Amino acid sequence: MPIYLDNAATSYPKPEEVYQAVDTALREGAGSPGRGGHRGGISAARLVLEARETLAHLFGVADSSRLVFTHSATESLNLALHGLLNPGDHVVTTSMEHNSMARPLHLASRRGVEVTWVEAGTDGFVSPEDLAAAVRPNTALIAVSHCSNVTGTIQAVSLIGEIARNAGIPFLVDAAQSAGCIPIDVGSMHIDMLAAPGHKGLMGPPGTGFLYIADGVSLQPLLVGGTGTSSASLDQPETLPERFESGTQNTPAIAGLLAGAGFVSSVGVANIAAHEAALVVPLMEGLRLIPGLKVYGPDPSLPRGSVVSFAIDGMDPSQVGFVLDHDYEIAVRTGLHCAPNAHRSIGTYPSGTIRVSPGWFNTGSEIATFLDAIDRIARRKR
Amino acid sequence: MPIYLDNAATSYPKPEEVYQAVDTALREGAGSPGRGGHRGGISAARLVLEARETLAHLFGVADSSRLVFTHSATESLNLALHGLLNPGDHVVTTSMEHNSMARPLHLASRRGVEVTWVEAGTDGFVSPEDLAAAVRPNTALIAVSHCSNVTGTIQAVSLIGEIARNAGIPFLVDAAQSAGCIPIDVGSMHIDMLAAPGHKGLMGPPGTGFLYIADGVSLQPLLVGGTGTSSASLDQPETLPERFESGTQNTPAIAGLLAGAGFVSSVGVANIAAHEAALVVPLMEGLRLIPGLKVYGPDPSLPRGSVVSFAIDGMDPSQVGFVLDHDYEIAVRTGLHCAPNAHRSIGTYPSGTIRVSPGWFNTGSEIATFLDAIDRIARRKR
Repeated sequence: MPIYLDNAATSYPKPEEVYQAVDTALREGAGSPGRGGHRGGISAARLVLEARETLAHLFGVADSSRLVFTHSATESLNLALHGLLNPGDHVVTTSMEHNSMARPLHLASRRGVEVTWVEAGTDGFVSPEDLAAAVRPNTALIAVSHCSNVTGTIQAVSLIGEIARNAGIPFLVDAAQSAGCIPIDVGSMHIDMLAAPGHKGLMGPPGTGFLYIADGVSLQPLLVGGTGTSSASLDQPETLPERFESGTQNTPAIAGLLAGAGFVSSVGVANIAAHEAALVVPLMEGLRLIPGLKVYGPDPSLPRGSVVSFAIDGMDPSQVGFVLDHDYEIAVRTGLHCAPNAHRSIGTYPSGTIRVSPGWFNTGSEIATFLDAIDRIARRKR
Repeated sequence: MPIYLDNAATSYPKPEEVYQAVDTALREGAGSPGRGGHRGGISAARLVLEARETLAHLFGVADSSRLVFTHSATESLNLALHGLLNPGDHVVTTSMEHNSMARPLHLASRRGVEVTWVEAGTDGFVSPEDLAAAVRPNTALIAVSHCSNVTGTIQAVSLIGEIARNAGIPFLVDAAQSAGCIPIDVGSMHIDMLAAPGHKGLMGPPGTGFLYIADGVSLQPLLVGGTGTSSASLDQPETLPERFESGTQNTPAIAGLLAGAGFVSSVGVANIAAHEAALVVPLMEGLRLIPGLKVYGPDPSLPRGSVVSFAIDGMDPSQVGFVLDHDYEIAVRTGLHCAPNAHRSIGTYPSGTIRVSPGWFNTGSEIATFLDAIDRIARRKR
């Protein structure tokens, strides 16, 4: 039986109801939400609204129209960054960002936006004080990933949110590794924009994501086009969510996301977090017992998610990943995980790490099998 | 049995193999193409490549890496327009454009791009001579929808392409209503950029689309982020397709698009066009026999696709659509169809039309049932 430990890339398997919801929506011809006028279009619109409200409830968003669907967290982050920032603006961010945040910011920096990259410690934590100290009069955004996709480090989002709120600066959180895995409440965490994928912790299919945009945050759309509303005007409508949802929506995938988010809600995010923590503890302990192996990221006693990075002395991570896949049918990810500066912070640049990311459907015995495989691989090398 | 005649919004039903391909890809956990290093990621990458090559072959694209996946034709058009145009550039386009082309162009015009909207005749045709006459020294693009989503009018794309080629101007074609329904060859039609959805004539699921970008056309990406390649660099890679495909791809939907495009290839686009034409002829003839009813768009003897618009004297189109849906279980679309200027050209602004768009799975007897329903509705009114 293959063992899947790459949930940080995409969660797998999905709950059975996710497969069924996608298939049903596709076979029933959900149509184009808000376009048809006929029953198909109306039921599609109802389904998309239900998904929007389910997600809004899960993240403490009071007005679901401010949660706009995208096709990926990458699109959500590009919308937030390109939509908000103008030349002359300053952004405070961290060295732990994934390229989905770092590349748009780097591009913005070439267009006259100033960016301060606050350096994380070797365990991946960024000090809220360092972030506060980086704020300038022209700081227009503080942008932070909630949970690192390299080390699993969970940043002190509530504290950072408070700093941002007190300074009157919008706060953007990349929840790629936390949405559905770690409780998030946009109100108490002072989050003004929350970007999340649908296909990771929320257990939906790829091709889904969302951006929550707090009231008072005004963004330019990333793309404009047919919205099914105000069709007579060549100007993109100002009203949400349609301002940011041009073109035919990915209704079958959103149906799957609704089923995934429903599953997550009924299990409970705190229970998912507890299950994953219960796998990470023996995983990290087991890895540390293997000679010649170094584990990165914070201890399980510190705030961390279900992402564990390690390296074996004298072995390239990609070689370890190949053997795991080929000889043991265990799926992990190896390399830089699209977050080069995070590896600079923790000291694993440029070779990267082997990343293990257990999810809700993994078991303790799979972790044991994985540890046994790594032990053999590390021994074989010696 | 409900009758679906809204294929211009999204094709329905899909071929059985499309449903199965989506479900299989999702259940087998296709993973994230080019990211994992494990078998799941590799098989996902192989599937996406096969889809890319199948589509490239269907449209005469020699180098499949120049066909980039998007999530909709809207995204493809925004990428083409925002990616190419700079302040001071001039664009020649038509009054027949859908808002997915018109709104990005209108937005560009507010940012210093000049746009000439060449007016169509009442049957929706735009004269290639008028387009040629609109060209200026700073014209950077000619942008035309292949087949109108309001009237079904097919523009003389090859001729317009020749004009563009001779003037050394890139030529963008919106194939939203033609891809998979009307033969397209980017070489002989001199098309430099071809934007298409995956969920209409190509019979794939929503959430899919592509943009073909000819060698020599250089675009700025609409969004940047993780590409699984050159991860150490904060600059977006220059190489195609990854330059324009940031973030986790919609692999299950692309699997469905591969199945849809495979179905279209095996049936043959010309055979699909012939089947649809064989439905449009009696549809238009039948509509014209009903008193108090006006049919818009070109005669079946002229170049036209499978989109027919009409209106009934003294009845609001939305009212007709409601009765069709409610009393007859027939799905059509009514209103402006996100193309307001097209209605100005044909004289149906602002009330719009009732749009009927038969597809491959419709039958002659469904058209007869539809005509009978319209006859009753028109009589009832009198």
